[in-house]
Parts: sequence; C-alpha cells; structure tokens
Amino acid sequence: MSALQARLDFILEADKLKTVIRRSWLTDESRLENSAEHQWHASLTALTLVEYAGPGVEIDRVLRMLMLHDLVEIDAGDTFLYDTAAAADQAAREQAAADRIFGLLPLEQGQAYRAIWDEFEAAESPSARFAKAVDRAIPMLLNLATDGRGWRDHNVRLDQVLSANWRIEAEIPELWAWIRPRLDDAVTNGWLRVPA
Amino acid sequence: MSALQARLDFILEADKLKTVIRRSWLTDESRLENSAEHQWHASLTALTLVEYAGPGVEIDRVLRMLMLHDLVEIDAGDTFLYDTAAAADQAAREQAAADRIFGLLPLEQGQAYRAIWDEFEAAESPSARFAKAVDRAIPMLLNLATDGRGWRDHNVRLDQVLSANWRIEAEIPELWAWIRPRLDDAVTNGWLRVPA
Repeated sequence: MSALQARLDFILEADKLKTVIRRSWLTDESRLENSAEHQWHASLTALTLVEYAGPGVEIDRVLRMLMLHDLVEIDAGDTFLYDTAAAADQAAREQAAADRIFGLLPLEQGQAYRAIWDEFEAAESPSARFAKAVDRAIPMLLNLATDGRGWRDHNVRLDQVLSANWRIEAEIPELWAWIRPRLDDAVTNGWLRVPA
Repeated sequence: MSALQARLDFILEADKLKTVIRRSWLTDESRLENSAEHQWHASLTALTLVEYAGPGVEIDRVLRMLMLHDLVEIDAGDTFLYDTAAAADQAAREQAAADRIFGLLPLEQGQAYRAIWDEFEAAESPSARFAKAVDRAIPMLLNLATDGRGWRDHNVRLDQVLSANWRIEAEIPELWAWIRPRLDDAVTNGWLRVPA
C-alpha cells in the first residue's frame, strides 16, 4: 500500500470519532457532544486560554495533543470521568486502540502521533499537563452553561468534581478561581449533589 | 468585563458551531457532518498530509486557520459549495459574522484570530492555499466513502466538482492524482451526473 493510501485510510478511520458520544450537553441542550467536535473545542480553548498557561507550555504541541487525544475512543469508547468501574481496564483498552489506530499510518508518522498521545497520557510535561487541564475544563464550562445538565443526568457530587478536576487548579489557576465559586452555586441550585 | 470572561464567552459562543450542519455524510451515513467536527477533521487531515504540501507552508499556521475558518457560520450558516445563489452575498454575511464573533475576544487576541481568518479567506499565502485545498478535499473523501451520498442528494455534476476543486490539484497534486480517476468511477457508478 502507498503511504498516501495509508494516510487516507487513517483519515477516514478517524471520521468514526464523530459517532462517539460523550456525557456533556451542547450549550443549547439539543444533544450530547461527540468526541470529534470535542477535540476541536478543546484545541480552540487551549489556544484561547494559552495566556494563563504556565512556563514551558508549547502551544503547538498542545494543539496536536488535543487533536489526537481521544482517537482511541473509536475502539475503546468514551470512559465517563466519574465511572470508576470502567476506568479499571481503560488504560489497557486504550493502549490496544492506540496500537491499531496509529498503526494505520506509515511507520514514522504513526510513531510520531503515538509519541504525542503517549506524552498526553503521561501528563508529565508542561504541555501535557496544560492539555489535560483544558480537557477537564471543557465539561465544567458546558455543565455550568446548561444548569448542570450532565451532572444532574448522572447524580454527580461536588466532592467527585473537586477530586477529578484538581488539574485545572494546578495548571490554570485563573480559570479555577472563576470556576470554583460557581461550583458552590451549582450545589445551591441543585445541579451538583453533596453527601447526605 | 475581565479578559478571562471575554475568552470564556467566545469559547461558549464557539460551541454553537456544533449545530451548523454541512452537506457531507459521515462515513457510516448515520447523519450529516457538522462544522465543528469538520474543523477538527480538517486540522487532522492537514497534519497528516503535510508531506505533500508545497514550499512555504507553515503547518502551525494551517492548523490555526482550519480551527477557525468556519466559525463565521455560526451567524452566516454553511454555504453549499455548489449553491451559486447563496454564494452571492456570502462574503458580506461572513465579514459581519467575523466582526461579531472575533469581536467577543479581548482586542489583541480578536485581531490575531481575525488576521488568521483573513489570511485563509484571501487564499494567497502558501499556508492559506494548502488549508483551502484540505478544506475542499474532505468532502471529496467523504463523498467517495459513501457512494457519493452528498453528491447524489444534490444532483451534483462532474463539471461542478472539477471547477470547484481545482485547488486540490494545484496545492496537493499527489492527492488529486488519487482522487481524479475515482471521479470518473463516480460517474460510471451514477454518483455524479454529467450534462446530457
């Protein structure tokens, strides 16, 4: 097979991400978000909030990470942040998916994409930590914009949100300062639960 | 308003692009594509095909263009490539949309985004010409993958496809060499019409 054919096969395989459904509602609440449009929204959000990123963040690397980070969901599905049972074998399923999907590309390009995805998953480099924080921030923004619709759907508790989203505070503190009081409002409004 | 609030307003406004519907079907033909997921797919396609780009193409600039190029459709709607009536006032509608949408951002950032969009629209720089060619290539790939579904929906003719997609041949000749014979097959298969 030609390198071009391999690349086109990858591009058409990636199209399937448009049918992977997430747990966040669009701001107009017409439907749930899919992972392909999420990847675009995450990239745009990173670019728009880069002024708040810490030292060492390479925005061009971040944009590539956010364009690629959820491709594994074509095989492994979207794992809900608050579903601890599904999280148990998530890593193994996603590694196998990465092998297959990036393996569609010519060897060198597939390895380059895989390295970007591995860096994101490892969440160690400044760029990866910022990308992860942006990825976490989007559902927060969508939930706050829809009266907590996704939280209410799944009876999510404030303590779950706080423990799952520490990266936003660590990497984008200005954004966390904006979000945090709104979480208390969300509890007051009944959008988020608190333990009885 | 704080700069952060302005940026978050822009990010949430951009969410509306997920509800702008295009004329291409997903590869599984479950539904039509929306413009938000298209922007992601276009970015991924540009990155994946950059080896075939001509001299002077700056891929990081291309990725920004493709992340932003259709945001104006939030106000102006998606104009079908083969709808010449709608194309008449398309430019004016899109300029007004760009004023409003990029105007949501802090001044300097809004101007930077607008400059990227203007460069894409002008289609003069090597990066913009490559980005435009990728933007044109995606519907071709999706149509070829779905037995010409979008073409059949709108009775599109081969001569329309050839005259609207010259940019692919000019900017990514290797890709055009892959596409061109498949257009003749599409005519043979009845997916594309030819003048009687």
